Amino acid sequence: MFSSNTVNSSAPPNPSKSIQDERSQNQFEPTLMHEFLEGSRENSQQILRLYHQMERDPILCSSYKDYELNRLEERTKSALRINSLSRYIEEDSPSDFHRRLNLLAVYDPSTGIRLSINLGLFVNCIKGNGTAEQYKYWCVDKETTKIKNAYGCFGMTELGHGSNVAGCETTATFDEENDQFIIDTPHIGATKWWIGGALHVATHCVVYARLIVKGKDYGVTTFVVPLRDSNHDVMPGITIGDIGGKMGREGVDNAWIQFSNVRIPRFFMLQRFCKVSSSGKVELPPLQQLVYISLLGGRVMMAVDSYRISARFITIAVRYAVGRRQFKKNGGDGNGDGLECKLLDYPLHQRRLMPYLALTYAMAVGTKKLENDHAACLKEFDYAVNSNDKVALKKALETTKSLFVDSASLKSTCTWLAGECITECRQACGGHGYSAYSGFGKTYGDWTIQCTYEGDNSVLGMSAGKAIIANTAQVIKKNKKITGSISFLSNAKNYINDELVLKSEDDLQDLSLVFKALEVLICRLANQSIDVLESSGDNNWDLVSYQRVVLSKLRCHHYLLQNFMSRIDSADESTKPMLKDVAKTYAYTSILENFSAELLSLNVTSPKFINRLKSSVIPTYLKKLRNQAITLTDSFQQPDMVLNSAIGNYNGDIYEDYFKVVKQANPPTQTKAPYSAAIESMLNRPSKEERERFEKSAETAKILSK
Amino acid sequence: MFSSNTVNSSAPPNPSKSIQDERSQNQFEPTLMHEFLEGSRENSQQILRLYHQMERDPILCSSYKDYELNRLEERTKSALRINSLSRYIEEDSPSDFHRRLNLLAVYDPSTGIRLSINLGLFVNCIKGNGTAEQYKYWCVDKETTKIKNAYGCFGMTELGHGSNVAGCETTATFDEENDQFIIDTPHIGATKWWIGGALHVATHCVVYARLIVKGKDYGVTTFVVPLRDSNHDVMPGITIGDIGGKMGREGVDNAWIQFSNVRIPRFFMLQRFCKVSSSGKVELPPLQQLVYISLLGGRVMMAVDSYRISARFITIAVRYAVGRRQFKKNGGDGNGDGLECKLLDYPLHQRRLMPYLALTYAMAVGTKKLENDHAACLKEFDYAVNSNDKVALKKALETTKSLFVDSASLKSTCTWLAGECITECRQACGGHGYSAYSGFGKTYGDWTIQCTYEGDNSVLGMSAGKAIIANTAQVIKKNKKITGSISFLSNAKNYINDELVLKSEDDLQDLSLVFKALEVLICRLANQSIDVLESSGDNNWDLVSYQRVVLSKLRCHHYLLQNFMSRIDSADESTKPMLKDVAKTYAYTSILENFSAELLSLNVTSPKFINRLKSSVIPTYLKKLRNQAITLTDSFQQPDMVLNSAIGNYNGDIYEDYFKVVKQANPPTQTKAPYSAAIESMLNRPSKEERERFEKSAETAKILSK
Repeated sequence: MFSSNTVNSSAPPNPSKSIQDERSQNQFEPTLMHEFLEGSRENSQQILRLYHQMERDPILCSSYKDYELNRLEERTKSALRINSLSRYIEEDSPSDFHRRLNLLAVYDPSTGIRLSINLGLFVNCIKGNGTAEQYKYWCVDKETTKIKNAYGCFGMTELGHGSNVAGCETTATFDEENDQFIIDTPHIGATKWWIGGALHVATHCVVYARLIVKGKDYGVTTFVVPLRDSNHDVMPGITIGDIGGKMGREGVDNAWIQFSNVRIPRFFMLQRFCKVSSSGKVELPPLQQLVYISLLGGRVMMAVDSYRISARFITIAVRYAVGRRQFKKNGGDGNGDGLECKLLDYPLHQRRLMPYLALTYAMAVGTKKLENDHAACLKEFDYAVNSNDKVALKKALETTKSLFVDSASLKSTCTWLAGECITECRQACGGHGYSAYSGFGKTYGDWTIQCTYEGDNSVLGMSAGKAIIANTAQVIKKNKKITGSISFLSNAKNYINDELVLKSEDDLQDLSLVFKALEVLICRLANQSIDVLESSGDNNWDLVSYQRVVLSKLRCHHYLLQNFMSRIDSADESTKPMLKDVAKTYAYTSILENFSAELLSLNVTSPKFINRLKSSVIPTYLKKLRNQAITLTDSFQQPDMVLNSAIGNYNGDIYEDYFKVVKQANPPTQTKAPYSAAIESMLNRPSKEERERFEKSAETAKILSK
Repeated sequence: MFSSNTVNSSAPPNPSKSIQDERSQNQFEPTLMHEFLEGSRENSQQILRLYHQMERDPILCSSYKDYELNRLEERTKSALRINSLSRYIEEDSPSDFHRRLNLLAVYDPSTGIRLSINLGLFVNCIKGNGTAEQYKYWCVDKETTKIKNAYGCFGMTELGHGSNVAGCETTATFDEENDQFIIDTPHIGATKWWIGGALHVATHCVVYARLIVKGKDYGVTTFVVPLRDSNHDVMPGITIGDIGGKMGREGVDNAWIQFSNVRIPRFFMLQRFCKVSSSGKVELPPLQQLVYISLLGGRVMMAVDSYRISARFITIAVRYAVGRRQFKKNGGDGNGDGLECKLLDYPLHQRRLMPYLALTYAMAVGTKKLENDHAACLKEFDYAVNSNDKVALKKALETTKSLFVDSASLKSTCTWLAGECITECRQACGGHGYSAYSGFGKTYGDWTIQCTYEGDNSVLGMSAGKAIIANTAQVIKKNKKITGSISFLSNAKNYINDELVLKSEDDLQDLSLVFKALEVLICRLANQSIDVLESSGDNNWDLVSYQRVVLSKLRCHHYLLQNFMSRIDSADESTKPMLKDVAKTYAYTSILENFSAELLSLNVTSPKFINRLKSSVIPTYLKKLRNQAITLTDSFQQPDMVLNSAIGNYNGDIYEDYFKVVKQANPPTQTKAPYSAAIESMLNRPSKEERERFEKSAETAKILSK
């Protein structure tokens, strides 16, 4: 029994012991597993080193107080953290700083995005759409990339335009006489909206606006517009206001901006691909999507965030589920110790949590791959542009296009799943999941906007799904061979039949067969969509929008499963058996079970198979994971500072920790509310008759009826 | 074009016109539809009359400021509203007040529950578990039912015990010598936790505690324990503290309570069913569940709340989806007006929202039935107890048991679905759904605890599902005939085979056949669970816990569909065609589509059928609803005050309204933040070398290396 500072008249619960006991039965080393999850020992050590530093930094480290700040306090805290990060960025290697910001975002998503708008969206927009000179001028020489002098924001969305950026109505009219552009907000609908960082921090904005030259509208392109002078005062003609309250991310100073005939020099237009000469000659980009290339990095990071945020909350929920006991005595774990059963020993609780645990592993591996793909793509692209090699450029554009699809599919699917994971984990912690100090509530509010911004999930899903259908059609109708990451679509013709792929329970043991079933499902679903499109006559892609989103989700799982399977081969031997069970659990639950309606309706498998899967195979694997659940979550190596949850600390001392936090945040010394008068006067009010001055009484009636 | 107070250089969007245009094409009267939804013209008029009064009441009416209050402000506001309600309760009929509180909870869930804890949980606990004298003493004579003198809270959950109330560890030890009970919190785990109203308002608490007489533990029963004296000071031996921050419901003053040897007279034990004589003779209740009978009313109301909260947010999302335009010009509605397409004209958007619209109609009808069943049950029960009629009591206990199952199934399924509805509606409003002023964020945080408290949804779902499996087993194994609302289980033997129920698309037109398919599915799934149980050997119900929750959901839909179908027969003729389409849409999406994996794996229908359903039938019905979506949501008749959403007002003037609210709440006059110094000093900081006093420079190196 642990010691206690209070007088007890009988034995208190001891959740800490339950967790420590399970930890002592680990079948692998969590540190080795962490290396697998992060891709290498080097990556793992980098992360631990950064945690080590951030835990001790009084500004950067988290606190339970973070859960009770009002908007101004949260913005202030975030500003102080950015200030502190501006010093780290001068010391860190680019890789260290990138990872530092990524780790910070797990417990402070507001600061994460507030700074990423500058270093990610703004800088990448200039890098992607600007000339080398423009990049050097605004980002390097001005030291914007060191969070110094200039600070950028990203003026894309408008009050009336979100997903359809091409429909933006802010105008940039070329004034040939003065060699200037006039930036203007023509009406309320074109007001720039949600512009993070613009309210209090940004000095510059990349503005997405319609290029109007000699009365002709060339569509949306990008301009650098200074917002504030070096005195940090707002420039004339620019109106900036506070967006106000949000569901979360209150630390971000989102603003609305209206431009009233603001003039900028012609060379403030970002002109890597798109140019306007002084005489008004217009050159347009080779691929319209390039205008949005700066969004790619954000989408990739949101997929990575999905892994880390899921890791955080599944760790909390698993620790709680091992420490918390409920109902049956001597049940489940069969200890015969007279204690109630651990939550995690209940099959239903395993079914609620273990699939998310397995999914988190799959996301770790898959999103790491996406991060690497993205880095390689940028490199390829830069090389091609700088060397002015047309062949290389064409190839780089293909890679970029492919990355648009992959990142769209992973960003949308993973952010949705992470949101569901937080919700399920919270509900699995019962009432205590609702406490601010468990961390779920605020983080869910902060998290969920990831499903909407920088590419609405439904819109991204539709775009990824469209690419799959279009490629499948190429194979089926034109015998084309597909290259790249979705090359399996080349098999579509062999797959679109009625043959069962998964026949018996034994087939489940071979994950490559499950993987094939997934590929067959994708091909058949795409083919079904092609039929719908063809029978509609007018090739209306909206008719298969729902199927497109489903295909995008399947494609994400295809990506995750493929990389998970291939990475296990090179894992440390001691971790392999567990990893194989995790990968199977992921494939059985997140893919086969969740898409069993599609698998059955397209005859990829049989009812008998699905019934066996659900009633027998899945429960067996959930139990395997449950037995190592503490070590599997310890392997994420997120310190208490990152978890920042009173019910999820490493020591497992749930009740003592939680009660201490509650008492510290709310000292129980004042028992009357400041508004107690309203309560007391209500409870002790005189009778209704008296308060009505007895005007409705029988006595009064007698007087008045005389 | 509407007039505008600002200077525009081109035409602004006009969402209001889009909405008004659709309204003018209504195929039925929303007022008549409202009468259907609320069960009668009388109910409808009662609600409109109450809205009329509440809208004008400066304390009771909502405000956008409600979205930006801190904890103390929200608690204060809630206290003022309770104070105001304490005057209405003296005037209102019981039915009016009940409905008033129910309507208020749609936009102020905190006040709703804060008062319901007193009037619902506390009073009902005394009524249900106390003698007639105890009820008269504490509730009537003290005027507690008029929110006067005494105010009760509900001391059930503990830090270490939530769902398993029977495991509570607070003790009530009988002291024969003094004819008293000693209430005590033996250790931290037994601290009463989450007790709403206890922190600042309550004068009394019904405490769930273990009855200990002569050293013997008789299990958990209920006691009335005074918390505060008439001076509103906390009694000695009682410690009350603030639970602190929560994900929502910040208006509720939840507390933790510790009792340290607090003495109460023996007759403070609620002794309708359970008695202890002065000599320590113990009498226990006929049905242990009766101890929790006070929870029934709350569960019923949470099912009703699910309807109203879904109605609120589907109204907002539909109005936004008609006013908002995106992408394709001249698309969807084929107006050829050069405008972008309305969101709701996209098939995917219809697929996201229309199923929830149809579900909300089904919930309206079904939960109204549950409300009536509950009222009838209470009446039956009271009669039986008061008349001391043993036969009537036995029958009443059967009805109560049945209501425990029905309410468990509906509370859990409907609160989950309402949570999903809020989330989907929010995401369907894109970025603006994330604004505090659209109402989604705060309400989601307030709402989601309904899935956990007063019966955790998973636990309730398992209990409802267990009843279905147990009854099915009675039919199959013992040829028993089932009575009551799940009498269809009596057909189980005829249903558990491999026969298809839904064969062709035509079968869909007959809703009674869809209804039969649902009954067959329930029987087959229950039978499958029986097989699992039998093959496990030890009758371990936990092995089918997942199936039990699925069965509970199916049973909820069975209840909703049955009542929806039967109510349409008596609907106004003008609303019938629409109602039939709504009922079909509900059955096709929420039941057939959502449970298609189960339907296929148990051979209730065929892959071909499901494929037709998804790709052709459902899109057709979604479009039917989409065409009347504005009128279908207008029919909920929730005024702007209840919606309290800047993007969902009746007039449809989304952008003007929203911008006005944002500007009023955050006047754009101050452009520098109070914390601007941190930002400015960061941006304008001297070089790193200078700040390091040039200590690392080459010059210094030269000096130091000498």
